[in-house]
Amino acid sequence: MVGAGMSPFGMFADRDSKDLFLQAFQEMLHSVDRGVDPGDIEALYLGNFTNDFFVQQSHWGAILADTLGLVPRPATRIEGACASSALAFREAVFSIASGFYDVVLVGGFEDMSKQATEQVAEGLALAASPYERSAGFTFPGVFGAIATAYFDKYGATREHLMNVTIKSHNNAPLNPKAQFQQTIQGIMASRAVKAKKKGGPVPEWQDEKQFLGDPQANPVVAWPMHLFDCSPISDGAACILLVGEEIARSFTEEPLYVAGLGQASGRALHAAEDLTYFEATRRAAQEAYGMSDLTPQDIQFAEVHDCFSIAEIMHIEDLGFFKPGQGYQAVADGLTRLDGPKPINTSGGLKCKGHPVGATGAAQLIEVWEQLRNKAGKRQVPHPDLRFGAAHNLGGTGGTCTFTILERR
Amino acid sequence: MVGAGMSPFGMFADRDSKDLFLQAFQEMLHSVDRGVDPGDIEALYLGNFTNDFFVQQSHWGAILADTLGLVPRPATRIEGACASSALAFREAVFSIASGFYDVVLVGGFEDMSKQATEQVAEGLALAASPYERSAGFTFPGVFGAIATAYFDKYGATREHLMNVTIKSHNNAPLNPKAQFQQTIQGIMASRAVKAKKKGGPVPEWQDEKQFLGDPQANPVVAWPMHLFDCSPISDGAACILLVGEEIARSFTEEPLYVAGLGQASGRALHAAEDLTYFEATRRAAQEAYGMSDLTPQDIQFAEVHDCFSIAEIMHIEDLGFFKPGQGYQAVADGLTRLDGPKPINTSGGLKCKGHPVGATGAAQLIEVWEQLRNKAGKRQVPHPDLRFGAAHNLGGTGGTCTFTILERR
Repeated sequence: MVGAGMSPFGMFADRDSKDLFLQAFQEMLHSVDRGVDPGDIEALYLGNFTNDFFVQQSHWGAILADTLGLVPRPATRIEGACASSALAFREAVFSIASGFYDVVLVGGFEDMSKQATEQVAEGLALAASPYERSAGFTFPGVFGAIATAYFDKYGATREHLMNVTIKSHNNAPLNPKAQFQQTIQGIMASRAVKAKKKGGPVPEWQDEKQFLGDPQANPVVAWPMHLFDCSPISDGAACILLVGEEIARSFTEEPLYVAGLGQASGRALHAAEDLTYFEATRRAAQEAYGMSDLTPQDIQFAEVHDCFSIAEIMHIEDLGFFKPGQGYQAVADGLTRLDGPKPINTSGGLKCKGHPVGATGAAQLIEVWEQLRNKAGKRQVPHPDLRFGAAHNLGGTGGTCTFTILERR
Repeated sequence: MVGAGMSPFGMFADRDSKDLFLQAFQEMLHSVDRGVDPGDIEALYLGNFTNDFFVQQSHWGAILADTLGLVPRPATRIEGACASSALAFREAVFSIASGFYDVVLVGGFEDMSKQATEQVAEGLALAASPYERSAGFTFPGVFGAIATAYFDKYGATREHLMNVTIKSHNNAPLNPKAQFQQTIQGIMASRAVKAKKKGGPVPEWQDEKQFLGDPQANPVVAWPMHLFDCSPISDGAACILLVGEEIARSFTEEPLYVAGLGQASGRALHAAEDLTYFEATRRAAQEAYGMSDLTPQDIQFAEVHDCFSIAEIMHIEDLGFFKPGQGYQAVADGLTRLDGPKPINTSGGLKCKGHPVGATGAAQLIEVWEQLRNKAGKRQVPHPDLRFGAAHNLGGTGGTCTFTILERR
């Protein structure tokens, strides 16, 4: 991995996928220390969930190849729900390892904000299993049921979920690309100011948890998932330049290497005997650890797929960072904070960085790239020798999971 | 390539993608002479255009992995408009060539017939370029414009297009999986019988061209594209088993080998200086010929992407089988008939075999498989020593093109 760039994530009424992708592409070109000629790019792999539905346009491989001036290079769109661009990354690795290409662009993007929220929810539900949908589930409902099962089995409570939210909101303002730029404390202050201006009663929350526990401030979506447990609707694009190992140092002095790759499919929730873990996350992790000869202890920090707060807690268990049923306490103890022993979602995560579905997998890898190269600015993990970081991406309700370990040598 | 299977193609009100894919999968398993344990399949690559739109369901990798009992194996959906499963085939080849997998399932499928025709047309238009769509084009319109340009440049007429249609309808009844099972002569006879039953005037067409020239029998869609110039709306699924070269003969005595692979992107028509060829088809062909060290003369027969009759004529020129501007005369002279020197679309082509968009690329390769192994039954190309056959797949209005050459050794 020798270059990376991303657009800001957010809701952009006047910017489309082409626009956002072009910005990510240009930033990627500038990120390559020793330069790259776009004409040397041999192929594109693009992750997109369903711009088909969101903006009534498909066949984005050809459109973006044209937008970037890369025609006649092959361009291939890949879809695995919310894991789309992590899958694109994997195929790009295969294409280089096969000897067919040396220089490959991987991208991800989604344009979600152009429709009403109800329609976006309907679009997202295309990624759920037909069995879940016929039972009336949308995503907050599925993860609400999962959280309830987890609470029941391990004794966690809503307060434990709040710790995830507070941490994500602490990290995001340190990331200029993040959709949400306020800590929970900051949001509380803004709301107090607004209320005062309006002349109404000024809310007085003692602390962040009281704010998150206030049903006016943080309404329920699908119990126990409240608004601040859910990742937002986002537009955004991210891209990565991958090249063959033997030529990497002609692009940059500090390439990253793919140490481990994992991908697994999971059955839908109707078939799960236990809702408190994701079998496909465990399988993907197993593959990546096996390939890299690393253990969960070797991974110094990670981006994990926190589409909902409960998901982050479950995934840090499934990836082996913490034992089953101990994730929620690890978060409560601050172990996953930026300055903790196992920083998780330093970018702000899906919750606060934003979740333009098809861009998420690539954006997670870009956070690992920034951190491992000590370019993460104010959110840099304070460790003197970062070597291994990882990204975990989940599609749908666990139907597709990936785990990718990057290495700085 | 050691196995292949496909569902019948057609409009099936009571059959969904899972159903059709399972049938293709089971036929594939039976096709492997020396047997295959489904548990040995390491990954799935699935081509689908937009079941997102057609049946409001995405994330088919996970769904089909579950349906086929292949969880937790990785499953990746790939989209390149009408070339989706040819792209899936290419990625599967890369994944094996990279050394990551040895046994990979490639599939394609689409479920198009559950909606009204107007909505299907809208869904198909998602594959066109935003520039074409904003100009009011749908697919028959685009190919109507292309045909007009071709007529103007080379002096071809509607009668030349009819030759393509007549040939496709001659081949299809020899293919039990084809959607249309009648020759044009057969259709003429059926219509005469129907008219007689109704007691109305019995139409008397002298020959097939008079029938195709009758605006009652063959109404215009977008001039000069008439109904019989257009491929139909279809449901269907197709799948292929690919394994590493060194283990192929443990699956079958007669494996096929991938001699050449080509894929290219093209700009939308608004950017074309000349509408009478597809630059991306030419580029894809160039790559595949280069890789295989073969010339167009070496390809003994081919499936080419005849989404519209004019497309078949243009592609047989772009692939180098005939010189630019000579394709229409070659068809008129019978050179592309089943018993001609360069049989084209022996399966009946998209026009008559059917065109379930995401299944088409894989189904074309399956026709090449059947022919090269002398298993094509009544439509077997009458050549004593078939060694090289090829499949050409086009996505959108030329945004994505592939050319794949298979070899029997």
